[in-house]
Amino acid sequence: MSRRHAPVPELFDAALSGDRAAVARLLSIIERGGEPAREVGRLSHPRSGHGYTIGLTGAPGAGKSTLTSATIAHLRSLELEVAVLAIDPSSPFTGGAILGDRVRMQDHATDPGVFIRSMATRGHLGGLSLATPEAVRLLDALGRRWILVETVGVGQVEVEIAGKADTTVVVVNPGWGDSVQANKAGLMEIADVFVINKADRAGVDQTRRDLEQMLDLSELGHDWRPPIVATVANTGEGVSDLWDAVLRHRAHAEASGQLTRRRTHRLREELREIVVQRLYEKARDLTTGDRWDELTDEVLHHRVDPWTAADEMLAPIDA
Amino acid sequence: MSRRHAPVPELFDAALSGDRAAVARLLSIIERGGEPAREVGRLSHPRSGHGYTIGLTGAPGAGKSTLTSATIAHLRSLELEVAVLAIDPSSPFTGGAILGDRVRMQDHATDPGVFIRSMATRGHLGGLSLATPEAVRLLDALGRRWILVETVGVGQVEVEIAGKADTTVVVVNPGWGDSVQANKAGLMEIADVFVINKADRAGVDQTRRDLEQMLDLSELGHDWRPPIVATVANTGEGVSDLWDAVLRHRAHAEASGQLTRRRTHRLREELREIVVQRLYEKARDLTTGDRWDELTDEVLHHRVDPWTAADEMLAPIDA
Repeated sequence: MSRRHAPVPELFDAALSGDRAAVARLLSIIERGGEPAREVGRLSHPRSGHGYTIGLTGAPGAGKSTLTSATIAHLRSLELEVAVLAIDPSSPFTGGAILGDRVRMQDHATDPGVFIRSMATRGHLGGLSLATPEAVRLLDALGRRWILVETVGVGQVEVEIAGKADTTVVVVNPGWGDSVQANKAGLMEIADVFVINKADRAGVDQTRRDLEQMLDLSELGHDWRPPIVATVANTGEGVSDLWDAVLRHRAHAEASGQLTRRRTHRLREELREIVVQRLYEKARDLTTGDRWDELTDEVLHHRVDPWTAADEMLAPIDA
Repeated sequence: MSRRHAPVPELFDAALSGDRAAVARLLSIIERGGEPAREVGRLSHPRSGHGYTIGLTGAPGAGKSTLTSATIAHLRSLELEVAVLAIDPSSPFTGGAILGDRVRMQDHATDPGVFIRSMATRGHLGGLSLATPEAVRLLDALGRRWILVETVGVGQVEVEIAGKADTTVVVVNPGWGDSVQANKAGLMEIADVFVINKADRAGVDQTRRDLEQMLDLSELGHDWRPPIVATVANTGEGVSDLWDAVLRHRAHAEASGQLTRRRTHRLREELREIVVQRLYEKARDLTTGDRWDELTDEVLHHRVDPWTAADEMLAPIDA
């Protein structure tokens, strides 16, 4: 059997022994979803639970990729290994991927202590929100202790994905207060650490004041007030401060029980999503075929109403 | 039995005989969803199919409410009756409604030939995309021949809802070409008629050229090129041109078979959504209770993997 068609358990063993191509292949399997993805999950799950996930999000152009790259460099200087997932929900209309600039990350492409992968999907509802925790779980099972999840954009899906990390870093720029595109409420809700990147530009103090004010007004952060760190990712300035803030949040999350609560909540959500996804697949099976076409026609001609038609199609699972 | 708790068939009869409070109550029932909403649907469906739906969407601040109000005035001058649904998907984070300015519409509040209702939902996935066609079907069954569906915002949900009309009007303003927030690709895809509102401001010609150019480059519009109408909704200028453009599109849609194709497609989508919704409700039932809590705990402690847990919960419907 060629490597290309290697079965999942064989790929998993290869990945465990350090074969990076096997890891990439397993992530592709997760991206495509379905039963093979679940097989990866069944192998990963018993070995997982030791990695720590850091979500990183912010508006396009905020410099997330550069900041991720600078963070990788910092972690490597501390002799820590790191895995990075760059998550890119495709536009619902164009179907096109709008991946950020990955060029800087390629600096680390040949470093065996760094693993970087972009993930995108044009698939069904909930594709990426299901695939991301599965991908994290795989990297965790393979022994990565630090897993960075960077999302492109500030739409609902991106914010949700980034917000499901153990520590979530929200990247803004000077002048953020004036921007109208940013999903500010959503970002405030998920931030454990704020970064004002491109801090060599004017307006850092004002942006810091804006953020502090929003934090003052916020209902959130009673037990943890997100620190605000200024960075210039291009030069690496402030990146060790960012890392210190992440470590402080981790220590707080572990000591306060927040980490356990978050992971429990996340797992519940994921389980519910798995159930919904399976039901969705079921619905797809139920809404194809001759009987479905006949029923649609009956509804179109007002001989059967849509609810009665749906009831008939659902009869097999309504037992 | 008090009116407040009147059963659906009684409310429906009252609505048929012109009781506006009964119509409002039926729409609230549709908004809340579930079995009572389906009951309204079963009563509406056999009587529906004679109304014509016009969707109206565009960025916040484009003047949609004012334009809707001016259109109502124009239709009333032609002695046509009209029903308006103002659809407002709530923010996923604040749960708050961000209804546009409804004040001008109140001009028509006492006119029996006009029916206006805002709809919002903080409910489950797909709530508004299911409730909107049900609300349209009710108004149709009650004899409204012209139904305007105005959506707030240009997010995916808003664009989808507006795009499900028989004729979709997209409202832009001078300078639209420069705006970054607008979901331009999505709006181009659904527009049957473009309106440049606030056409008393500078930049109308440039915006018209931008739109024409986008239409030239577009893959769409082979059999119908969306006309571009300039309006000043505040003064009513251009509103009769807008109405003429809508009527021209309607004539084209009817003659070309587009209307039948669209309605068939819409109904198929709606049926599929009903099936998904029912499955979602099923999932909610399956993911509560003691066994679910136990399983979640097992997964948390890595004794059972998430897929095996989901399989067990889904066993009752996997027969």
